[in-house]
Amino acid sequence: MKDYLSMNIDELKSEYEIVKERYNKLKQLDLKLDMSRGKPGKEQLEISVNMLDILDSNSQLITEEGVDCRNYGLLDGISEIKEIFSGMMEVPSDNIMVGGNSSLNMMFDTISCFMIKGVGGCKPWIKQDKIKFLCPVPGYDRHFAITEYFGFEMINIPMLATGPDMDIIEKLVAEDEAIKGIWCVPKYSNPQGITYSDETVRRLANLHPKAKDFRIFWDNAYCVHDLTEEGTKLLNIFDECKKAENEDLPIIFSSTSKVTFPGSGVAAMAASDNNMKVIMEKYKYQTIGYDKINMLRHVRYFKDYNGILEHMKRHRDILKPKFDVVTDTLDREIRDRNLAKWEKPDGGYFVSVDVHNGCATRTVELCAQAGVKLTGAGAAFPYGKDPDDSNIRIAPSYPSVHELEKAMEVFCISLRLAVLEKELNI
Amino acid sequence: MKDYLSMNIDELKSEYEIVKERYNKLKQLDLKLDMSRGKPGKEQLEISVNMLDILDSNSQLITEEGVDCRNYGLLDGISEIKEIFSGMMEVPSDNIMVGGNSSLNMMFDTISCFMIKGVGGCKPWIKQDKIKFLCPVPGYDRHFAITEYFGFEMINIPMLATGPDMDIIEKLVAEDEAIKGIWCVPKYSNPQGITYSDETVRRLANLHPKAKDFRIFWDNAYCVHDLTEEGTKLLNIFDECKKAENEDLPIIFSSTSKVTFPGSGVAAMAASDNNMKVIMEKYKYQTIGYDKINMLRHVRYFKDYNGILEHMKRHRDILKPKFDVVTDTLDREIRDRNLAKWEKPDGGYFVSVDVHNGCATRTVELCAQAGVKLTGAGAAFPYGKDPDDSNIRIAPSYPSVHELEKAMEVFCISLRLAVLEKELNI
Repeated sequence: MKDYLSMNIDELKSEYEIVKERYNKLKQLDLKLDMSRGKPGKEQLEISVNMLDILDSNSQLITEEGVDCRNYGLLDGISEIKEIFSGMMEVPSDNIMVGGNSSLNMMFDTISCFMIKGVGGCKPWIKQDKIKFLCPVPGYDRHFAITEYFGFEMINIPMLATGPDMDIIEKLVAEDEAIKGIWCVPKYSNPQGITYSDETVRRLANLHPKAKDFRIFWDNAYCVHDLTEEGTKLLNIFDECKKAENEDLPIIFSSTSKVTFPGSGVAAMAASDNNMKVIMEKYKYQTIGYDKINMLRHVRYFKDYNGILEHMKRHRDILKPKFDVVTDTLDREIRDRNLAKWEKPDGGYFVSVDVHNGCATRTVELCAQAGVKLTGAGAAFPYGKDPDDSNIRIAPSYPSVHELEKAMEVFCISLRLAVLEKELNI
Repeated sequence: MKDYLSMNIDELKSEYEIVKERYNKLKQLDLKLDMSRGKPGKEQLEISVNMLDILDSNSQLITEEGVDCRNYGLLDGISEIKEIFSGMMEVPSDNIMVGGNSSLNMMFDTISCFMIKGVGGCKPWIKQDKIKFLCPVPGYDRHFAITEYFGFEMINIPMLATGPDMDIIEKLVAEDEAIKGIWCVPKYSNPQGITYSDETVRRLANLHPKAKDFRIFWDNAYCVHDLTEEGTKLLNIFDECKKAENEDLPIIFSSTSKVTFPGSGVAAMAASDNNMKVIMEKYKYQTIGYDKINMLRHVRYFKDYNGILEHMKRHRDILKPKFDVVTDTLDREIRDRNLAKWEKPDGGYFVSVDVHNGCATRTVELCAQAGVKLTGAGAAFPYGKDPDDSNIRIAPSYPSVHELEKAMEVFCISLRLAVLEKELNI
């Protein structure tokens, strides 16, 4: 297996003919496979199906504190589920608000709140001239979409193996008062699977932004989503910020969307007393309260935070072989040919592949034509623009192992074809 | 039983001594009763408890259209529940978006959306100088709280027996471009239980507001919440607006909060294609989708819109006797004494009592001191300010019939005492 970068023109041409033929054969299989979103597969959904037996008409639906979950009330969620989220998010339950089914919605609502009312004693964001947000790239497309919706200017921050480039961040936030926030997926980042190093977390906690209303949007979506037995350990940003007398910096989000049922799970957020005061002042007007029966269902199912950890092992058992297919195939087909860079993640939902510059869009296109749907090239960047057209996000969770093998075969051949087309100016 | 208004000073003084003594005796009973919120009582919650048996681990959780309710997706809700809401809201299901557990949240979100993005091709509300909202009074405190949160100026519109005073509304909206909306609870209005007359609905549908982004917030919270067998019939605003070539005017809201479980029901909104385009463009960024399992649970439980109507009869059987206690007690204790005005509602959740001017706050206070909690006086008005200090909202749903009898005894004595104190300058 030869490094494409060392091939001469004739070798490239003959390789092109071989790859083209293999691609065309794959195309004829008329596949319909989807590796585009971090969507749990059917076997994963089956794991949680007993949750539907937890509550029935004979169940006692009163919380420990005597709240009838069937009726109105309790804006911040039942205390039992706050306790579980306290374990999951490593934040005291007094600083937690439990919401509906979507942490993304809570992020959207939080930014909306700061737009209208401001935070940190500052003017509402909407009354300020310009709002900028730091976006570690590649990152989560739906984060960037929210800040785009609100019209913020987004600034790309390179991701390093340790997390976002702190040298750049420290410099930017110290200088520019328009910078109001940063999007972080600190554990098993979307899409690279990077867990921020202790130093990165400490430096974030010790930021001294010019804007008093700068906030770290800490989307700990994958806090319990390990792919290895040991997992990786993320330093507790809430505690580090407290130590740094900077406790108003982080706003932390999490949910059970990829623990139980996506769309029918429970989401939560956590922040300092000051921040929660601003946020609860909004929720008070926004709603009477969220679905306490579904909260109770989760509580009775998991019993405690340990129950969640046990449950996550079953997800791991299903996901691990799928990730192995992806990285094993890349190792076998791509590494020696020197066509891309990637890391084997220890958790999360994605494998991020950096292909030769200028080849991502074409690879995704070739995959699509052969029936394999990938996340659009560039999706992991603000405005959907990958400056190098290099990054591709692979989401292995939804297809079966067998389908993945086929899909990855298509991916590798498509990537080879895209690179050859580029080298040969086809 | 003598009309208080016809008593001379000596009669008032001796009446005061009698009433004061009865009040003090009631106070000693150390009651703890709550008539403050439109919260269903326990027997009402029991009606829906079988809904918890509808889905279990053996259930097929795929919709008619093949959507797996356990996974992500489907931003506007499953088609089966849209069909049910279509019956309930009298709007084609294509114009319906099904959300989370709270229609109030959808109203908040809609205003938030118009603030940030605008509607009707106009500038975002936040970029316009001043936003004003029409508030029929007395009305729903949480509506007024939302418009207060966003900093709108609220204009009181008197409620007539036919709905809000259309003469005033037509004049105001034609003249003032800053007026962007009106809050309506068109059927069994909160708190008076008034159903808008056909003429009122038609005149609303034929409004020609100066502001192209004026919208009618049509909170049809009590659309199926009849207290009589026949109920009252509300004209369909969506159709009337279409006839008037004014289809972008109304934004309609409803939910199953007071049908199944408050807090664990399903909410929906409906509007014209143009409006829905603006609204869905926001939802697209805000969330991946709402709780489809809970939607399916409701669908399987009710089967169709008729199932909801049948279910509501059971609520009626429980609520009717409670409303009877309230209005019978008022008839017996208050009418001849000429202390207040009220109407017996045909549906909804409240009895609205207009007591002598300047006596509402004191009556509520006296009730509280005797252990009966009422909605704060003035709550049904913007900024909590009842200009006449006259309106009191009674919510009979939560206490039992027996408790209500006691509570209404306290209410009537408190009202008599408050009026006597005022007449005697005590």
